[in-house]
Amino acid sequence: MVDLNSLGKRAKAASQALAVTVTECKNEALCAIADALDAAHEPILEANRADVAAAHVKGLTTALIDRLTLTPTRLEGIAADVRHVVGLPDPVGVEFEAETLPNGLRVRKRRTPIGVLGVIYEARPNVTIDIAALALKSGNAAILRGGSETLRSNRALIEVIQRGLSEAGLSADSILYIDDTDRALVLALLRLHDYVDMIIPRGGAGLHQFCRENATIPVITGGIGICHIYVDESADPDAAVEIVHNAKTQRPSVCNALDTLLVHPGVASELLPRVVERLEADGVTFRADPRALALVGGTLTVAAAGPDDFDQEWLSLVLGLKVVDGLDAAIEHIRTHSTGHSDAILTKNDAHAKRFVDEVDSAAVYVNASTRFTDGSQLGLGAEVAVSTQKLHARGPMALKELTTYKWIIEGDGHVRE
Amino acid sequence: MVDLNSLGKRAKAASQALAVTVTECKNEALCAIADALDAAHEPILEANRADVAAAHVKGLTTALIDRLTLTPTRLEGIAADVRHVVGLPDPVGVEFEAETLPNGLRVRKRRTPIGVLGVIYEARPNVTIDIAALALKSGNAAILRGGSETLRSNRALIEVIQRGLSEAGLSADSILYIDDTDRALVLALLRLHDYVDMIIPRGGAGLHQFCRENATIPVITGGIGICHIYVDESADPDAAVEIVHNAKTQRPSVCNALDTLLVHPGVASELLPRVVERLEADGVTFRADPRALALVGGTLTVAAAGPDDFDQEWLSLVLGLKVVDGLDAAIEHIRTHSTGHSDAILTKNDAHAKRFVDEVDSAAVYVNASTRFTDGSQLGLGAEVAVSTQKLHARGPMALKELTTYKWIIEGDGHVRE
Repeated sequence: MVDLNSLGKRAKAASQALAVTVTECKNEALCAIADALDAAHEPILEANRADVAAAHVKGLTTALIDRLTLTPTRLEGIAADVRHVVGLPDPVGVEFEAETLPNGLRVRKRRTPIGVLGVIYEARPNVTIDIAALALKSGNAAILRGGSETLRSNRALIEVIQRGLSEAGLSADSILYIDDTDRALVLALLRLHDYVDMIIPRGGAGLHQFCRENATIPVITGGIGICHIYVDESADPDAAVEIVHNAKTQRPSVCNALDTLLVHPGVASELLPRVVERLEADGVTFRADPRALALVGGTLTVAAAGPDDFDQEWLSLVLGLKVVDGLDAAIEHIRTHSTGHSDAILTKNDAHAKRFVDEVDSAAVYVNASTRFTDGSQLGLGAEVAVSTQKLHARGPMALKELTTYKWIIEGDGHVRE
Repeated sequence: MVDLNSLGKRAKAASQALAVTVTECKNEALCAIADALDAAHEPILEANRADVAAAHVKGLTTALIDRLTLTPTRLEGIAADVRHVVGLPDPVGVEFEAETLPNGLRVRKRRTPIGVLGVIYEARPNVTIDIAALALKSGNAAILRGGSETLRSNRALIEVIQRGLSEAGLSADSILYIDDTDRALVLALLRLHDYVDMIIPRGGAGLHQFCRENATIPVITGGIGICHIYVDESADPDAAVEIVHNAKTQRPSVCNALDTLLVHPGVASELLPRVVERLEADGVTFRADPRALALVGGTLTVAAAGPDDFDQEWLSLVLGLKVVDGLDAAIEHIRTHSTGHSDAILTKNDAHAKRFVDEVDSAAVYVNASTRFTDGSQLGLGAEVAVSTQKLHARGPMALKELTTYKWIIEGDGHVRE
């Protein structure tokens, strides 16, 4: 079995060097990784074909096999993403909140890397490169643990990363991979607090829960979204239908896709039939509460909602429908059922918009827009490492800055405390 | 046994109301609590006398009994601290990083309370009021769990808090106390992730470790400091002796007190005898490595350092002494032995100061000053809820702003994602 303590020690040492590596050198390594990726299509695709073949033998789902499949186009996209990170500003070393205290002590904070990231992910091999690029640019080392179904692909990708690191004169230990599918190693990684400073799970709700329950290292949980849109009485019905359609169907498998539509009674009879008509054309089926069912229950695609249907992250073309008595009831429903990811109000009433924004405690709160924008690249971060739905450190989309911490720097002239 | 789920639900509901409570109302509650504290000296001191008597019967140490003892002067000090919090700026509602994206979406972040804090602490009953005041001001509800040896005192203090809350029209559930000494409840609180958003342990290393190992909620670990001062060759010896004296003796029982003195060989023979002479006069004893021992080993207060003596947080009048070959060796020693709390270099060499600041990865890195300033009230935060030595969310002293998170607010005009 892989000796995790030894991996941890190597990663920690590499992180100490990375923390004082200048931006130019980190960018050079990123360019070298992108170039190495371009040059290694053949071995990577060959390894990936073996993973895909094994996945077919194992009988994995088509969706899962699609997620783990690499193609020349996908590899080009991954290399382009790495080159994009080169252009993003380096958050490390930025100083802020500088002040001279009344006693003359000069105090400031400086943004520094977190240290060593532990990243646990499932099928997608692109995460290997994505995370490596973001970790490097933010001066962090990382220990990666991908899914067993992509082990061969990840081995090929890690080779590419380490070639790029070496070419730029950085330690190959900056990005380490746990090349062993023993599940006990996931648990061991979650408890490697002597060397690892932060755990980032990339996967489903089960993985996040496992990490939260077993880690002795801070975990960024998130990526689970039971997302709501509340259509207020004053909302523009045409815009509402388009926003709901977009939030549900533009990419239904992701965490910021719409799960439950809440509708004011004053617009329900006009809006719900239009929503059903527009969305069922794209294959959406519906789970309606009794009042919604009374309005659209005749439709073949609409079923009565079961007791747990408003606590589902659908990740598919299913949409919950509920008529709520107004803003208070909408906020109450969201407080009870939301995972705190992305929730929206559609309204022309400014006071209602303000109350919704004030009282709905989600990572992203929307007014008159689709929930699909909760994404680092959509919200101006230039990249995304995770979407946090917990409240410490960072909330919502996380990118480079969110992979840093800060240190206090205090300079005196022989200062002692009275 | 106390029903923690029910406490959690009540605290969560109270936190939702507190999150939208205006500053004036929170300040009114703080004033009411301070007034109620002033008016309730007698019942509080009576309860405290019973705790102290029980502590004597149990044979607790003098230091512990001192920590749990309240006096009229101490109560006045606690009330003054509450009134001080009234004057601190409210971090909640502050908006930042506002921008209009190219697609017209208007994005900003707004500082919001974290929600419900779970606070686990040991003997000091003043923590009950301190934490309540800081939680309230930052819009958070809290569930408190104090030590069993202060249960009676804490009951009296919680009554005062809840009287103040009620007088200001706030829910008494805003600050709840686990009035049950069953230790299983600590574990249950650490796993109450449906209702509690952040755990703050206030106590020794054992408590922090227990929280880190058992919590399913993010924990702010910290408050453990193995702190170093490295005296470089160019340091002013007079200033060095005073800084070392201050860092070790000004309050030896706290986490930012000095534990290990590292000295450059070029100044060791002059400096170490002076340090020993100056500090032993105040009762300090020393544990010296072989090279330091060769210089000050004749002194009665100096013993040879044992194998673990450089991994001790002394919290008492003991100081480790070590001669290191220079800056690299000092940084290496600190990387190996520091808990990342507070570490200092004393030097006139700017390049050495810069390397120390760059390469020592501690929450607070000092140049030419005593480590004793790592404290929210010393560094301009106006208060302190904890000193974090982990790297997520906040690092070093934490006060009101560090008890908040943020939400993304995204406003559109019918925006959908392409």
